[in-house]
Amino acid sequence: MDTMGKTITCLAAIAWKTNSSLSLEKVQVEPPKVGEVRIKIISTGICGSDDHAVKGIIPLKCPFIPGHEGAGIVESIGEGVSSVKPGDKVLTLAIPQCRECSACLNPKGNFCEKQDFLPPSGLMLDGTSRFTCKGEKIYHSFRTSTFTEYTVVPEISMVKIDAAAPMDKICVISCEVATGYGAAVHSAKVTPGSTCVVFGLGGIGSAVVMGCKASGASRIIGVDINEEKFPRARALGVTDCLNPSNLKKPVQEVVKEMTGTGVDFAFEAIGLAETMVAAWDSCHLSHGVCIIIGVSAPGSKFSLSAQSVSTGRTLKGTCLGDYKTRDCFPQLVTAYLQNKINIDPLITHQLPFDQLHKAFELYHAGKTIRCVLLF
Amino acid sequence: MDTMGKTITCLAAIAWKTNSSLSLEKVQVEPPKVGEVRIKIISTGICGSDDHAVKGIIPLKCPFIPGHEGAGIVESIGEGVSSVKPGDKVLTLAIPQCRECSACLNPKGNFCEKQDFLPPSGLMLDGTSRFTCKGEKIYHSFRTSTFTEYTVVPEISMVKIDAAAPMDKICVISCEVATGYGAAVHSAKVTPGSTCVVFGLGGIGSAVVMGCKASGASRIIGVDINEEKFPRARALGVTDCLNPSNLKKPVQEVVKEMTGTGVDFAFEAIGLAETMVAAWDSCHLSHGVCIIIGVSAPGSKFSLSAQSVSTGRTLKGTCLGDYKTRDCFPQLVTAYLQNKINIDPLITHQLPFDQLHKAFELYHAGKTIRCVLLF
Repeated sequence: MDTMGKTITCLAAIAWKTNSSLSLEKVQVEPPKVGEVRIKIISTGICGSDDHAVKGIIPLKCPFIPGHEGAGIVESIGEGVSSVKPGDKVLTLAIPQCRECSACLNPKGNFCEKQDFLPPSGLMLDGTSRFTCKGEKIYHSFRTSTFTEYTVVPEISMVKIDAAAPMDKICVISCEVATGYGAAVHSAKVTPGSTCVVFGLGGIGSAVVMGCKASGASRIIGVDINEEKFPRARALGVTDCLNPSNLKKPVQEVVKEMTGTGVDFAFEAIGLAETMVAAWDSCHLSHGVCIIIGVSAPGSKFSLSAQSVSTGRTLKGTCLGDYKTRDCFPQLVTAYLQNKINIDPLITHQLPFDQLHKAFELYHAGKTIRCVLLF
Repeated sequence: MDTMGKTITCLAAIAWKTNSSLSLEKVQVEPPKVGEVRIKIISTGICGSDDHAVKGIIPLKCPFIPGHEGAGIVESIGEGVSSVKPGDKVLTLAIPQCRECSACLNPKGNFCEKQDFLPPSGLMLDGTSRFTCKGEKIYHSFRTSTFTEYTVVPEISMVKIDAAAPMDKICVISCEVATGYGAAVHSAKVTPGSTCVVFGLGGIGSAVVMGCKASGASRIIGVDINEEKFPRARALGVTDCLNPSNLKKPVQEVVKEMTGTGVDFAFEAIGLAETMVAAWDSCHLSHGVCIIIGVSAPGSKFSLSAQSVSTGRTLKGTCLGDYKTRDCFPQLVTAYLQNKINIDPLITHQLPFDQLHKAFELYHAGKTIRCVLLF
């Protein structure tokens, strides 16, 4: 490509400071350095974690370019990159897979030590940024930054996918599907005939519901304070909808009464201490598994009764479904192409990138499962 | 036996009120009713949970007869009992296995709904007691009450074991070995080459160490404030001993530094909120598994950073190693008889039942791994 080796000027969304509206700006995107890849973004989803980052609930260094759920085409590669070449279709990875650290070398878990999230540097692995705007250095987010026509990411933060993948949709595999569907089928390993409760029926929660249904759960209770989400949740597999605002007792007590003993699997897809405790308390005392997906603010804590742990229950956090991202995401894409996973119902809106603000409005109003921005 | 159908008067230890010294008394033990078994106790271990019960940390109804880690011989059976006959060797089970409830019917977990612990009734399944002393009703503990020459338990709270089992030792299978060894090999499934930390090096913690070693752990860090326990812990497999009282920083930070990334498996065998958090914080962010074994006071809570969960770690409670007790305990006994598990190093003291107070003194001084009382 004729941009190879050159700085590209393109459109990007910048969070100049915490909790302010994103600005669409012309940014300069440097060529990839050693071990890096420059990607022309084709589509990106708007995830709750992006909203958390913009609001400062996930504190990143400002100014930064948000976005992590991206699909694109390799524009150019830096020295030493061997897994992709220009023209390849790729997904961006909010959690990289370096294949060298203690997390990557363990067969379980996926929280690669090279992740840039807890805590965030906002910089590439060499400690510098590839973005500038009006002469100012712009930080990366999660080393992905997909709210831009072009981005640069470490090779370990992207993965090549099947050339047949539809680029206007496939981005949702890289977070929504992996995180939600993966939490049910891979992290929790929901069993046929089991009972489940899902706290939060947004994009991630909806994908959890889909995973529970695909796993053969007999009952899926959906919990949200926005009842507008209920019809869509039912269509995805939720059997019972609960709005905690309209209940006379704590939602976990209602879930216990509905199921007799508590659920086999509970999922928290919001990121609030209160709903984490509610999910825990909804679980069966003996074998209940509570999966925490929602990312919360740094200082946030939740308290569990020490005795409530003794009975055997499991609390497990998960990000991106515990999948080793570079190993597993191409398989998820292939599963979609083979009609083994249907991601289509998870994408309710598609808007051009420059309608970013409208997309966030729809997100905040709870009107989307996932809105995908197209470039 | 000629006692069949008759009330037996025998020696038992009674906790007349919370946190007072146990009294050795003559008690009347009624014959077993429908679905019950009267057992002549041969040996019983003194477990931390018995001490917790006597102190009121585990609140039971007073007056009660403590003890749950028992081995004995069936004296007589009530109507409908089919799994044992007089003369059979049995273990008592602090967690029963009714094989009918939602916990028993699930392949995972063991917290049978018929347990009498959270909350405790202190009574048999029909709501009455089999013990009286000086005309007063005496409560059962955990429906086992083994600090007595004879006890009555529900059929679901005992299990027949191999006739070759040595009755002066085998009692420790029914709690110490199942709980500690089981937490490592069955609940956590410690992997070869892994790193472990064990908080608390008493009876349970020592059995955890043994389980970690048997599973091939490469490093086992033992934590206790009583350094007298360290030589024995090293003999069982502990590679590094830490006394938090002598450290300049929190023990979890020291464990992180020692291992670089935190341990693969952490075990809490004390029952304190503080050590539960320390165990959690000692774990590898991505795949670390924190097993909570210690039973704490009812109101006790512990707080976790919500973000610290997101990275993938697992917190799991366990009682009796998550074993379905009636299904699995006979197998543990057989494994011991076949020299596949060596329980002998876990029993450091054996005393006659009437030296109960001396046994508790030794326990409180941290001088025992397990003291077994012999009848």
